[in-house]
Amino acid sequence: MRLKNIKNAINIINESPYVVEDIKSYKGRVSDLFENDNDIMIEIGMGKGNFIINTAINNPHINYIGIEKYPSVLVSVIKKLSTQTIPNLKIVCMDAKEIDEVFENDIKGLFLNFSDPWPKTRHAKRRLTSLVFLKYYDKLFKDEAHIYQKTDNIDLFHYSLESFVKYGYNLVDLSFNYHKSHTNIVKTEYEEKFSNLGFNINYVEVKKIYNK
Amino acid sequence: MRLKNIKNAINIINESPYVVEDIKSYKGRVSDLFENDNDIMIEIGMGKGNFIINTAINNPHINYIGIEKYPSVLVSVIKKLSTQTIPNLKIVCMDAKEIDEVFENDIKGLFLNFSDPWPKTRHAKRRLTSLVFLKYYDKLFKDEAHIYQKTDNIDLFHYSLESFVKYGYNLVDLSFNYHKSHTNIVKTEYEEKFSNLGFNINYVEVKKIYNK
Repeated sequence: MRLKNIKNAINIINESPYVVEDIKSYKGRVSDLFENDNDIMIEIGMGKGNFIINTAINNPHINYIGIEKYPSVLVSVIKKLSTQTIPNLKIVCMDAKEIDEVFENDIKGLFLNFSDPWPKTRHAKRRLTSLVFLKYYDKLFKDEAHIYQKTDNIDLFHYSLESFVKYGYNLVDLSFNYHKSHTNIVKTEYEEKFSNLGFNINYVEVKKIYNK
Repeated sequence: MRLKNIKNAINIINESPYVVEDIKSYKGRVSDLFENDNDIMIEIGMGKGNFIINTAINNPHINYIGIEKYPSVLVSVIKKLSTQTIPNLKIVCMDAKEIDEVFENDIKGLFLNFSDPWPKTRHAKRRLTSLVFLKYYDKLFKDEAHIYQKTDNIDLFHYSLESFVKYGYNLVDLSFNYHKSHTNIVKTEYEEKFSNLGFNINYVEVKKIYNK
Protein backbone atom coordinates (compact mmCIF):
# COMPACT_ATOMS: atom_id res chain seq x y z
CA MET A 1 0.00 0.00 0.00
CA ARG A 2 1.27 3.44 -0.92
CA LEU A 3 2.00 6.03 1.78
CA LYS A 4 -0.83 8.24 0.50
CA ASN A 5 -3.28 5.35 0.83
CA ILE A 6 -2.04 4.50 4.31
CA LYS A 7 -2.58 8.12 5.38
CA ASN A 8 -6.01 7.99 3.87
CA ALA A 9 -6.75 4.74 5.74
CA ILE A 10 -5.63 6.30 9.03
CA ASN A 11 -7.97 9.24 8.46
CA ILE A 12 -10.96 6.97 7.75
CA ILE A 13 -10.17 4.89 10.84
CA ASN A 14 -9.75 7.79 13.21
CA GLU A 15 -13.10 9.28 12.21
CA SER A 16 -14.94 6.16 13.38
CA PRO A 17 -16.60 6.28 16.83
CA TYR A 18 -15.39 2.69 17.41
CA VAL A 19 -11.74 3.58 17.12
CA VAL A 20 -9.80 4.78 20.15
CA GLU A 21 -6.99 6.92 18.81
CA ASP A 22 -5.31 7.90 22.08
CA ILE A 23 -5.59 4.46 23.68
CA LYS A 24 -2.34 4.83 25.63
CA SER A 25 -3.88 7.64 27.66
CA TYR A 26 -6.32 5.03 29.04
CA LYS A 27 -3.60 2.96 30.69
CA GLY A 28 -4.86 1.57 33.97
CA ARG A 29 -8.41 2.84 33.35
CA VAL A 30 -9.49 1.01 30.19
CA SER A 31 -12.98 0.53 31.66
CA ASP A 32 -13.54 4.26 31.10
CA LEU A 33 -13.93 3.44 27.40
CA PHE A 34 -17.19 1.74 28.27
CA GLU A 35 -19.88 3.01 30.61
CA ASN A 36 -19.69 0.01 32.92
CA ASP A 37 -17.27 -2.31 34.74
CA ASN A 38 -18.02 -5.41 32.71
CA ASP A 39 -15.24 -7.87 31.88
CA ILE A 40 -12.95 -6.86 29.03
CA MET A 41 -11.79 -9.28 26.33
CA ILE A 42 -9.31 -8.38 23.59
CA GLU A 43 -8.49 -9.88 20.21
CA ILE A 44 -4.96 -9.41 18.93
CA GLY A 45 -4.97 -9.39 15.14
CA MET A 46 -8.70 -8.83 14.57
CA GLY A 47 -8.19 -8.72 10.78
CA LYS A 48 -11.44 -7.99 8.93
CA GLY A 49 -13.34 -8.04 12.21
CA ASN A 50 -16.15 -10.59 11.72
CA PHE A 51 -15.17 -12.57 14.82
CA ILE A 52 -15.04 -9.74 17.33
CA ILE A 53 -18.00 -7.86 15.87
CA ASN A 54 -20.28 -10.90 16.06
CA THR A 55 -18.91 -12.02 19.43
CA ALA A 56 -19.61 -8.52 20.83
CA ILE A 57 -23.15 -8.57 19.41
CA ASN A 58 -23.76 -12.03 20.94
CA ASN A 59 -22.40 -11.04 24.38
CA PRO A 60 -23.62 -7.53 25.22
CA HIS A 61 -22.53 -7.82 28.86
CA ILE A 62 -18.87 -8.27 28.00
CA ASN A 63 -16.69 -5.48 26.59
CA TYR A 64 -14.49 -6.20 23.57
CA ILE A 65 -11.46 -4.44 22.19
CA GLY A 66 -10.15 -5.49 18.79
CA ILE A 67 -6.51 -4.79 18.04
CA GLU A 68 -5.06 -4.67 14.56
CA LYS A 69 -1.64 -3.55 13.40
CA TYR A 70 -2.46 -2.59 9.81
CA PRO A 71 -4.62 0.49 9.12
CA SER A 72 -5.38 -0.80 5.63
CA VAL A 73 -7.05 -3.91 7.11
CA LEU A 74 -9.13 -1.84 9.52
CA VAL A 75 -10.69 0.24 6.76
CA SER A 76 -13.03 -2.61 5.77
CA VAL A 77 -13.93 -3.17 9.44
CA ILE A 78 -14.87 0.49 9.84
CA LYS A 79 -17.05 0.31 6.73
CA LYS A 80 -18.83 -2.78 8.12
CA LEU A 81 -19.46 -1.00 11.42
CA SER A 82 -20.68 2.29 9.96
CA THR A 83 -24.31 1.13 9.97
CA GLN A 84 -24.25 -0.59 13.38
CA THR A 85 -24.33 0.46 17.02
CA ILE A 86 -22.36 -1.88 19.27
CA PRO A 87 -21.67 -0.09 22.57
CA ASN A 88 -19.49 -2.91 23.94
CA LEU A 89 -16.93 -2.82 21.12
CA LYS A 90 -13.86 -0.65 20.61
CA ILE A 91 -11.08 -0.87 18.03
CA VAL A 92 -7.44 0.05 18.32
CA CYS A 93 -4.77 0.28 15.61
CA MET A 94 -1.62 -0.89 17.36
CA ASP A 95 1.21 -3.42 17.30
CA ALA A 96 0.76 -6.33 19.76
CA LYS A 97 4.16 -5.51 21.22
CA GLU A 98 2.80 -2.23 22.57
CA ILE A 99 -0.26 -3.54 24.40
CA ASP A 100 1.43 -3.37 27.79
CA GLU A 101 1.46 0.39 27.31
CA VAL A 102 -2.35 0.23 27.43
CA PHE A 103 -3.52 -2.72 29.54
CA GLU A 104 -2.52 -3.36 33.12
CA ASN A 105 -4.38 -5.88 35.29
CA ASP A 106 -7.61 -5.09 33.51
CA ILE A 107 -8.43 -7.76 30.94
CA LYS A 108 -10.11 -11.11 31.42
CA GLY A 109 -9.64 -12.85 28.09
CA LEU A 110 -7.52 -12.82 24.97
CA PHE A 111 -8.45 -14.18 21.55
CA LEU A 112 -5.71 -15.29 19.17
CA ASN A 113 -7.35 -16.21 15.90
CA PHE A 114 -5.21 -17.49 13.03
CA SER A 115 -2.12 -15.63 14.17
CA ASP A 116 0.99 -15.53 12.00
CA PRO A 117 2.69 -18.95 12.42
CA TRP A 118 6.24 -17.56 11.93
CA PRO A 119 7.33 -20.99 10.67
CA LYS A 120 11.10 -20.46 10.87
CA THR A 121 12.64 -21.60 14.16
CA ARG A 122 14.67 -18.41 14.46
CA HIS A 123 11.40 -16.43 14.46
CA ALA A 124 9.71 -18.61 17.11
CA LYS A 125 9.74 -15.82 19.71
CA ARG A 126 7.55 -13.71 17.44
CA ARG A 127 4.72 -16.23 17.64
CA LEU A 128 1.96 -14.79 19.83
CA THR A 129 2.05 -17.90 22.04
CA SER A 130 5.83 -17.93 22.64
CA LEU A 131 6.97 -17.89 26.27
CA VAL A 132 8.08 -14.29 25.67
CA PHE A 133 4.49 -13.29 24.86
CA LEU A 134 2.88 -15.45 27.56
CA LYS A 135 5.05 -13.74 30.17
CA TYR A 136 4.13 -10.39 28.71
CA TYR A 137 0.38 -11.15 28.85
CA ASP A 138 0.62 -11.79 32.63
CA LYS A 139 0.75 -8.03 33.15
CA LEU A 140 -2.47 -7.47 31.20
CA PHE A 141 -4.79 -9.90 32.94
CA LYS A 142 -6.80 -9.08 36.05
CA ASP A 143 -7.26 -12.02 38.46
CA GLU A 144 -7.69 -14.76 35.84
CA ALA A 145 -6.19 -15.29 32.42
CA HIS A 146 -8.22 -16.90 29.64
CA ILE A 147 -6.67 -17.36 26.22
CA TYR A 148 -8.64 -18.73 23.27
CA GLN A 149 -6.67 -19.81 20.22
CA LYS A 150 -7.83 -20.97 16.79
CA THR A 151 -5.48 -21.95 13.99
CA ASP A 152 -5.32 -24.15 10.91
CA ASN A 153 -1.53 -24.39 11.26
CA ILE A 154 -0.81 -27.63 13.12
CA ASP A 155 2.84 -26.76 13.77
CA LEU A 156 1.87 -23.47 15.40
CA PHE A 157 -0.81 -25.31 17.36
CA HIS A 158 1.62 -27.94 18.69
CA TYR A 159 4.08 -25.20 19.57
CA SER A 160 1.37 -23.22 21.36
CA LEU A 161 0.13 -26.21 23.38
CA GLU A 162 3.66 -26.99 24.56
CA SER A 163 4.13 -23.33 25.41
CA PHE A 164 0.86 -23.09 27.40
CA VAL A 165 1.67 -26.26 29.37
CA LYS A 166 5.26 -25.10 30.03
CA TYR A 167 3.99 -21.76 31.30
CA GLY A 168 1.54 -23.36 33.77
CA TYR A 169 -1.69 -22.78 31.87
CA ASN A 170 -4.49 -25.28 32.42
CA LEU A 171 -6.15 -26.59 29.24
CA VAL A 172 -9.90 -26.16 29.59
CA ASP A 173 -11.11 -27.07 26.12
CA LEU A 174 -9.18 -28.67 23.26
CA SER A 175 -10.09 -29.79 19.79
CA PHE A 176 -8.02 -30.86 16.80
CA ASN A 177 -11.16 -30.66 14.66
CA TYR A 178 -13.03 -27.67 16.01
CA HIS A 179 -15.72 -27.47 13.36
CA LYS A 180 -16.67 -31.09 13.97
CA SER A 181 -16.55 -31.07 17.77
CA HIS A 182 -18.18 -27.69 18.46
CA THR A 183 -21.35 -25.89 17.42
CA ASN A 184 -22.39 -22.20 17.43
CA ILE A 185 -18.97 -21.17 16.17
CA VAL A 186 -18.34 -17.51 15.42
CA LYS A 187 -15.98 -17.62 12.46
CA THR A 188 -13.35 -15.20 11.23
CA GLU A 189 -13.33 -14.39 7.50
CA TYR A 190 -10.22 -16.53 7.09
CA GLU A 191 -11.82 -19.41 8.98
CA GLU A 192 -14.97 -19.25 6.86
CA LYS A 193 -12.94 -19.41 3.67
CA PHE A 194 -10.44 -22.08 4.66
CA SER A 195 -12.85 -24.39 6.46
CA ASN A 196 -15.02 -24.34 3.34
CA LEU A 197 -11.94 -25.47 1.40
CA GLY A 198 -11.63 -28.44 3.75
CA PHE A 199 -8.84 -27.13 5.98
CA ASN A 200 -8.90 -28.46 9.52
CA ILE A 201 -9.26 -25.94 12.36
CA ASN A 202 -7.72 -26.48 15.81
CA TYR A 203 -8.97 -24.83 18.97
CA VAL A 204 -7.82 -24.49 22.56
CA GLU A 205 -9.00 -22.54 25.59
CA VAL A 206 -6.50 -22.19 28.43
CA LYS A 207 -6.83 -20.69 31.89
CA LYS A 208 -4.64 -19.50 34.72
CA ILE A 209 -5.58 -18.04 38.09
CA TYR A 210 -3.35 -15.38 39.65
CA ASN A 211 -2.72 -14.28 43.20
CA LYS A 212 -2.18 -10.66 42.19
CA MET B 1 1.41 -69.11 18.07
CA ARG B 2 0.28 -72.70 18.41
CA LEU B 3 -1.65 -73.79 21.49
CA LYS B 4 1.25 -76.05 22.54
CA ASN B 5 3.64 -73.10 22.38
CA ILE B 6 1.27 -70.86 24.33
CA LYS B 7 1.04 -73.52 27.06
CA ASN B 8 4.80 -73.75 27.06
CA ALA B 9 5.08 -69.93 27.34
CA ILE B 10 2.66 -69.89 30.27
CA ASN B 11 4.76 -72.52 32.05
CA ILE B 12 7.98 -70.53 31.55
CA ILE B 13 6.28 -67.35 32.76
CA ASN B 14 4.75 -68.85 35.86
CA GLU B 15 8.06 -70.28 36.99
CA SER B 16 9.61 -66.79 37.18
CA PRO B 17 9.86 -65.14 40.62
CA TYR B 18 8.86 -61.85 38.99
CA VAL B 19 5.51 -63.12 37.79
CA VAL B 20 2.48 -62.96 40.04
CA GLU B 21 0.19 -65.74 38.92
CA ASP B 22 -2.70 -65.26 41.34
CA ILE B 23 -2.69 -61.47 41.17
CA LYS B 24 -6.46 -61.19 41.67
CA SER B 25 -6.07 -62.59 45.20
CA TYR B 26 -4.11 -59.42 46.02
CA LYS B 27 -7.03 -57.12 45.36
CA GLY B 28 -6.96 -54.22 47.82
CA ARG B 29 -3.59 -55.28 49.22
CA VAL B 30 -1.22 -55.03 46.26
CA SER B 31 1.50 -53.58 48.54
CA ASP B 32 1.84 -57.08 50.00
CA LEU B 33 3.68 -58.04 46.80
CA PHE B 34 6.53 -55.81 47.93
CA GLU B 35 8.01 -55.60 51.40
CA ASN B 36 7.24 -51.90 51.80
CA ASP B 37 4.55 -49.25 51.30
CA ASN B 38 6.29 -47.37 48.51
CA ASP B 39 4.26 -45.87 45.67
CA ILE B 40 3.14 -48.28 42.98
CA MET B 41 3.29 -47.51 39.26
CA ILE B 42 1.97 -49.80 36.55
CA GLU B 43 2.61 -50.13 32.83
CA ILE B 44 -0.21 -51.45 30.69
CA GLY B 45 1.23 -53.25 27.66
CA MET B 46 4.83 -53.65 28.85
CA GLY B 47 5.77 -55.56 25.69
CA LYS B 48 9.39 -56.72 25.75
CA GLY B 49 9.94 -54.99 29.08
CA ASN B 50 12.93 -52.67 28.54
CA PHE B 51 11.07 -49.60 29.74
CA ILE B 52 9.72 -50.93 33.02
CA ILE B 53 12.83 -52.99 33.84
CA ASN B 54 15.15 -49.99 33.43
CA THR B 55 12.73 -47.59 35.12
CA ALA B 56 12.51 -49.97 38.11
CA ILE B 57 16.32 -50.22 38.28
CA ASN B 58 16.62 -46.40 38.14
CA ASN B 59 14.00 -45.84 40.86
CA PRO B 60 14.46 -48.44 43.61
CA HIS B 61 12.12 -46.60 46.01
CA ILE B 62 9.12 -46.94 43.72
CA ASN B 63 7.37 -50.26 43.06
CA TYR B 64 6.53 -51.24 39.49
CA ILE B 65 4.10 -53.73 38.05
CA GLY B 66 4.28 -54.51 34.35
CA ILE B 67 1.14 -55.81 32.71
CA GLU B 68 1.09 -57.66 29.41
CA LYS B 69 -1.73 -59.53 27.72
CA TYR B 70 0.29 -61.96 25.59
CA PRO B 71 2.24 -64.79 27.28
CA SER B 72 4.40 -65.21 24.15
CA VAL B 73 5.65 -61.61 24.52
CA LEU B 74 6.46 -62.13 28.20
CA VAL B 75 8.75 -65.09 27.53
CA SER B 76 11.53 -62.79 26.30
CA VAL B 77 11.03 -60.51 29.31
CA ILE B 78 11.43 -63.47 31.67
CA LYS B 79 14.61 -64.52 29.91
CA LYS B 80 16.02 -60.99 30.26
CA LEU B 81 15.18 -60.96 33.98
CA SER B 82 16.56 -64.44 34.79
CA THR B 83 20.02 -63.03 35.62
CA GLN B 84 18.84 -59.97 37.53
CA THR B 85 17.44 -59.19 40.97
CA ILE B 86 15.02 -56.27 40.96
CA PRO B 87 12.97 -56.40 44.18
CA ASN B 88 10.70 -53.48 43.18
CA LEU B 89 9.40 -55.13 39.99
CA LYS B 90 6.56 -57.58 39.42
CA ILE B 91 4.99 -58.83 36.22
CA VAL B 92 1.43 -59.86 35.51
CA CYS B 93 -0.03 -61.58 32.44
CA MET B 94 -3.49 -60.06 32.14
CA ASP B 95 -5.84 -58.12 29.85
CA ALA B 96 -6.08 -54.38 30.65
CA LYS B 97 -9.84 -54.77 30.91
CA GLU B 98 -9.40 -56.90 34.03
CA ILE B 99 -7.14 -54.60 36.03
CA ASP B 100 -9.98 -53.34 38.20
CA GLU B 101 -10.18 -56.88 39.56
CA VAL B 102 -6.69 -56.30 40.99
CA PHE B 103 -6.14 -52.62 41.75
CA GLU B 104 -8.37 -50.51 43.96
CA ASN B 105 -7.21 -47.09 45.23
CA ASP B 106 -3.64 -48.29 45.39
CA ILE B 107 -1.67 -47.04 42.40
CA LYS B 108 0.00 -43.70 41.88
CA GLY B 109 1.00 -43.76 38.23
CA LEU B 110 0.20 -45.41 34.93
CA PHE B 111 2.48 -45.71 31.90
CA LEU B 112 0.94 -46.09 28.45
CA ASN B 113 3.79 -46.64 26.00
CA PHE B 114 3.01 -47.04 22.30
CA SER B 115 -0.45 -48.45 22.91
CA ASP B 116 -2.50 -49.84 20.05
CA PRO B 117 -3.91 -46.79 18.18
CA TRP B 118 -7.11 -48.60 17.10
CA PRO B 119 -7.34 -46.26 14.09
CA LYS B 120 -10.93 -47.00 13.08
CA THR B 121 -13.48 -44.63 14.63
CA ARG B 122 -15.76 -47.50 15.57
CA HIS B 123 -12.94 -48.94 17.72
CA ALA B 124 -12.18 -45.62 19.48
CA LYS B 125 -13.46 -46.89 22.83
CA ARG B 126 -10.77 -49.58 22.81
CA ARG B 127 -7.98 -46.97 22.87
CA LEU B 128 -6.41 -46.97 26.33
CA THR B 129 -7.02 -43.22 26.62
CA SER B 130 -10.73 -43.28 25.69
CA LEU B 131 -13.15 -41.74 28.19
CA VAL B 132 -14.30 -45.31 28.95
CA PHE B 133 -10.78 -46.23 30.11
CA LEU B 134 -10.11 -42.91 31.90
CA LYS B 135 -13.26 -43.43 33.96
CA TYR B 136 -12.18 -46.97 34.69
CA TYR B 137 -8.69 -45.84 35.85
CA ASP B 138 -10.28 -43.58 38.51
CA LYS B 139 -10.94 -46.69 40.62
CA LEU B 140 -7.30 -47.77 40.52
CA PHE B 141 -5.59 -44.58 41.67
CA LYS B 142 -4.97 -43.66 45.29
CA ASP B 143 -5.17 -39.92 46.05
CA GLU B 144 -3.53 -38.68 42.84
CA ALA B 145 -3.59 -39.95 39.28
CA HIS B 146 -0.52 -39.60 37.06
CA ILE B 147 -0.63 -40.91 33.50
CA TYR B 148 2.43 -40.87 31.24
CA GLN B 149 1.87 -41.53 27.56
CA LYS B 150 4.33 -41.98 24.71
CA THR B 151 3.32 -42.64 21.12
CA ASP B 152 4.53 -42.12 17.57
CA ASN B 153 0.93 -42.13 16.32
CA ILE B 154 -0.12 -38.48 16.04
CA ASP B 155 -3.81 -39.28 15.61
CA LEU B 156 -3.84 -41.36 18.80
CA PHE B 157 -1.93 -38.57 20.52
CA HIS B 158 -4.41 -35.86 19.46
CA TYR B 159 -7.28 -38.11 20.51
CA SER B 160 -5.63 -38.76 23.89
CA LEU B 161 -4.97 -35.08 24.59
CA GLU B 162 -8.60 -34.20 23.84
CA SER B 163 -9.69 -37.07 26.05
CA PHE B 164 -7.45 -36.04 28.99
CA VAL B 165 -8.64 -32.42 28.81
CA LYS B 166 -12.29 -33.47 28.52
CA TYR B 167 -11.95 -35.72 31.55
CA GLY B 168 -10.45 -32.93 33.72
CA TYR B 169 -6.81 -34.01 33.68
CA ASN B 170 -4.20 -31.29 34.01
CA LEU B 171 -1.35 -31.43 31.48
CA VAL B 172 1.94 -31.29 33.38
CA ASP B 173 4.44 -31.97 30.60
CA LEU B 174 3.88 -32.07 26.85
CA SER B 175 6.13 -32.60 23.88
CA PHE B 176 5.46 -33.24 20.21
CA ASN B 177 9.14 -34.08 19.75
CA TYR B 178 10.06 -35.94 22.93
CA HIS B 179 13.52 -37.08 21.89
CA LYS B 180 14.51 -33.50 21.07
CA SER B 181 12.97 -31.79 24.10
CA HIS B 182 13.89 -34.29 26.83
CA THR B 183 17.04 -36.03 28.01
CA ASN B 184 17.64 -39.19 30.11
CA ILE B 185 14.86 -41.00 28.29
CA VAL B 186 14.21 -44.65 29.15
CA LYS B 187 13.16 -46.14 25.83
CA THR B 188 10.97 -49.09 24.98
CA GLU B 189 12.28 -51.52 22.33
CA TYR B 190 9.76 -50.14 19.85
CA GLU B 191 10.80 -46.57 20.64
CA GLU B 192 14.49 -47.39 20.17
CA LYS B 193 13.82 -48.92 16.79
CA PHE B 194 11.41 -46.36 15.40
CA SER B 195 13.17 -43.24 16.69
CA ASN B 196 16.34 -44.52 15.01
CA LEU B 197 14.34 -44.72 11.80
CA GLY B 198 13.45 -41.05 12.18
CA PHE B 199 9.91 -41.44 13.54
CA ASN B 200 8.76 -38.64 15.78
CA ILE B 201 7.78 -39.50 19.37
CA ASN B 202 5.13 -37.59 21.32
CA TYR B 203 4.93 -37.46 25.10
CA VAL B 204 2.48 -36.22 27.70
CA GLU B 205 2.24 -36.42 31.48
CA VAL B 206 -1.16 -35.66 32.99
CA LYS B 207 -2.29 -35.36 36.59
CA LYS B 208 -5.48 -35.32 38.60
CA ILE B 209 -6.00 -34.96 42.34
CA TYR B 210 -8.87 -36.81 43.98
CA ASN B 211 -10.90 -36.19 47.12
CA LYS B 212 -11.36 -39.89 47.75
